[in-house]
Amino acid sequence: MNVVTTKLELITKINRYKERNQTIGFVPTMGYLHEGHMKLLEEARKDNDIVVLSIFVNPLQFGVNEDYDSYPRNQQRDEELAKLSGVDLLFSPSVPEIYPTEPSYTVKVQSRVNVLCGRSRKGHFDGVATILTKLFNLIKPDRAYFGMKDAQQVAVIDGLITEFYFPIELVSVPTIREADGLAKSSRNVKLNEKDRNEAPVIYKSLSNAKNEIAKGERDKEKLKALITTTISQETDGEIDYIEILSYPNLEEIEVIRGKVIIAIAVKFTNARLIDNITIEVK
Amino acid sequence: MNVVTTKLELITKINRYKERNQTIGFVPTMGYLHEGHMKLLEEARKDNDIVVLSIFVNPLQFGVNEDYDSYPRNQQRDEELAKLSGVDLLFSPSVPEIYPTEPSYTVKVQSRVNVLCGRSRKGHFDGVATILTKLFNLIKPDRAYFGMKDAQQVAVIDGLITEFYFPIELVSVPTIREADGLAKSSRNVKLNEKDRNEAPVIYKSLSNAKNEIAKGERDKEKLKALITTTISQETDGEIDYIEILSYPNLEEIEVIRGKVIIAIAVKFTNARLIDNITIEVK
Repeated sequence: MNVVTTKLELITKINRYKERNQTIGFVPTMGYLHEGHMKLLEEARKDNDIVVLSIFVNPLQFGVNEDYDSYPRNQQRDEELAKLSGVDLLFSPSVPEIYPTEPSYTVKVQSRVNVLCGRSRKGHFDGVATILTKLFNLIKPDRAYFGMKDAQQVAVIDGLITEFYFPIELVSVPTIREADGLAKSSRNVKLNEKDRNEAPVIYKSLSNAKNEIAKGERDKEKLKALITTTISQETDGEIDYIEILSYPNLEEIEVIRGKVIIAIAVKFTNARLIDNITIEVK
Repeated sequence: MNVVTTKLELITKINRYKERNQTIGFVPTMGYLHEGHMKLLEEARKDNDIVVLSIFVNPLQFGVNEDYDSYPRNQQRDEELAKLSGVDLLFSPSVPEIYPTEPSYTVKVQSRVNVLCGRSRKGHFDGVATILTKLFNLIKPDRAYFGMKDAQQVAVIDGLITEFYFPIELVSVPTIREADGLAKSSRNVKLNEKDRNEAPVIYKSLSNAKNEIAKGERDKEKLKALITTTISQETDGEIDYIEILSYPNLEEIEVIRGKVIIAIAVKFTNARLIDNITIEVK
């Protein structure tokens, strides 16, 4: 595995792959790799000649009150995991390498952002779209891999690739779950024992809603009420949002039809958990 | 010459050039081609295997009170001129082909824009940067050609390519002038006889300033005063701005040193003319 920290080294390697007509699968991350990232790398490994992983904690996507400084980092462990996952090239630049000055050119995202988690994270997806525009142009991947755990991020990137005509296939990878259904997340370790026992109810409530839809339910409010009841009765978590939207446009819908997402955020004592399912409804 | 109007046809052609490892020179325009454009095409023809010309009057770069609807168009004449210039591929999409909906993803430019003409054209360069991001991703040129007549546009695109890491060489082509020094422009035909006789004074004043710098003058205000005096005494035009800035950063400078631009806008009876020179000062 090659590890590079500068754009120049990166471009040199990428040009070599391109000269050999090797396909490139790209997994952009902020590091502190977990099983979700491993799954992305595994998929990228299957589909492409070359796997490129980037590790960059992007200051531009953190709000002023968010945890940029305390965001977990472990470069050594990440490098070991990357090597085990068969990564060919790891790009882990410094902040000044990517932003030598305050950025003068940024991508502004005006749809798919004022819902779900984006509602309370103004500018977050502008930061995501800006860094990905840079990384896409540097790495020129054939495919880029993102986890459906953060479905809104996938939707925003889908729009970015479509509207800016990046010649890149977006591959969205299903959420990895514990045996009891809880979506894997770095934050799960913050749950106390009681919360950990209750947390699988989130996915259970999503699965219940899916079953009701399969049985013919098309009323959005009834489905949201069902989820609310399940979570309220079976956990002490505080519901942040339950939303049912079109996917990937993330627009309000009246009736459940076409591709839809049901997304939930619940605050437990020490962690706010998110989860979602997407369903294709005839 | 191939003429295509859809992204799909364009991408098919571009992919064929790429497979053959042919280099692509790209000249983006809003059509109504004049000698300035011909010069860009000529340079592109010299440097590259393939020359791609785009003609697209981009609504996103016109302000609400600007002349989008009345902007001159002449597709048939443009096609003939393109053919004569040895263009291989002309891309002239419709507006819905490029913007099927209101754009949700735009590029926001935060430096180099609040000076010169940009001061009175809020959002103009966001529109320019957005359409070029799309066209660069579609056409994947090795080189892109722009005229120094609009030096601020060249500076903004230089920044776009640099910050977003587009793997494209920007080629800036010197302004074409009439025998008397007047910069060629579609707007020159609007000048009445008296204004047309006075208009070359703009370039004369720039040349005078350049001579003074060569003789050792480094005081910005003295140079601006010299230009003001020349234009005021020898024309009835109304000076819109005279600015001396660093180039390409377009930042205020106190002393003339390094690469600088002297840029002028003067309003005559029926046309506002712009001109500039860049100078490297030791």
